[in-house]
Amino acid sequence: MTIRATFQGEPVVVLLVEDNEDHAELVMRSLAAHRVANEIHHVSDGQLALDYVFRRGDYADPAKSPRPHVILLDLRLPKVDGLEVLQTIKTSSDLRLIPIVVLTTSEAEKDVFRAYSNYVNSYLVKPIGYEKFSELMEQLGFYWMGWNKNPPL
Amino acid sequence: MTIRATFQGEPVVVLLVEDNEDHAELVMRSLAAHRVANEIHHVSDGQLALDYVFRRGDYADPAKSPRPHVILLDLRLPKVDGLEVLQTIKTSSDLRLIPIVVLTTSEAEKDVFRAYSNYVNSYLVKPIGYEKFSELMEQLGFYWMGWNKNPPL
Repeated sequence: MTIRATFQGEPVVVLLVEDNEDHAELVMRSLAAHRVANEIHHVSDGQLALDYVFRRGDYADPAKSPRPHVILLDLRLPKVDGLEVLQTIKTSSDLRLIPIVVLTTSEAEKDVFRAYSNYVNSYLVKPIGYEKFSELMEQLGFYWMGWNKNPPL
Repeated sequence: MTIRATFQGEPVVVLLVEDNEDHAELVMRSLAAHRVANEIHHVSDGQLALDYVFRRGDYADPAKSPRPHVILLDLRLPKVDGLEVLQTIKTSSDLRLIPIVVLTTSEAEKDVFRAYSNYVNSYLVKPIGYEKFSELMEQLGFYWMGWNKNPPL
């Protein structure tokens, strides 16, 4: 699923890796509401996330599946789990440039430790309740798609 | 130089690595004004930054020189440059957990590329003018000391 919006004229591409459909919809709606996310590509498991970034299968066409500026990554995912997705991307000399923000329900110290050990850029815990969730999406959007200087594509 | 403030009761420690005294003061004032930074330790070159995180010399006492939650790192630095500081920290299995935010005047693609290649967590370009600078410090503070789940110390 893809949502398109514009932000200061320049499209910013987000890859959202999330198996929980409710959470995915919440993220996409919130980002769209705050007009901070621009082109959101949603995949629902870790294997599809890797297929997307490595441009395999359905994601071979760069026009349809552009390289993301930022990846929002859930940790508990079917097929290939989020930590393995993170490790695979962060050990690729090319793809590791892409900022990865973990967005998860887990506050477990083990998960936080492993994510930072594997060079996650930022780790966010999903807040309870729509209002707080929406506020986080706004802040996340302003920070990563506004203030942060993204790597060259 | 150390500035102390409180934020939601829990002290958050920031290591600021900045050789430009005006910029350092601006960062410290802005963070203090928004009450988002809590305990800021300022060092003015790359060698001192490494001494601090590896607890060498004047920084041997963890009570006086606590491990930072976040490092704000300029790139152009005397003695050891910012990129080397980044590389050294991000190749340490322990220290690499610490989020490093580059805060620099350089928008050069080469610098951005090298920083992300060496696992910088985020890259921010210093805005021109106090108001914008202060606004960035507020956002940075809320994001990294509020929303972001920091790694276990």
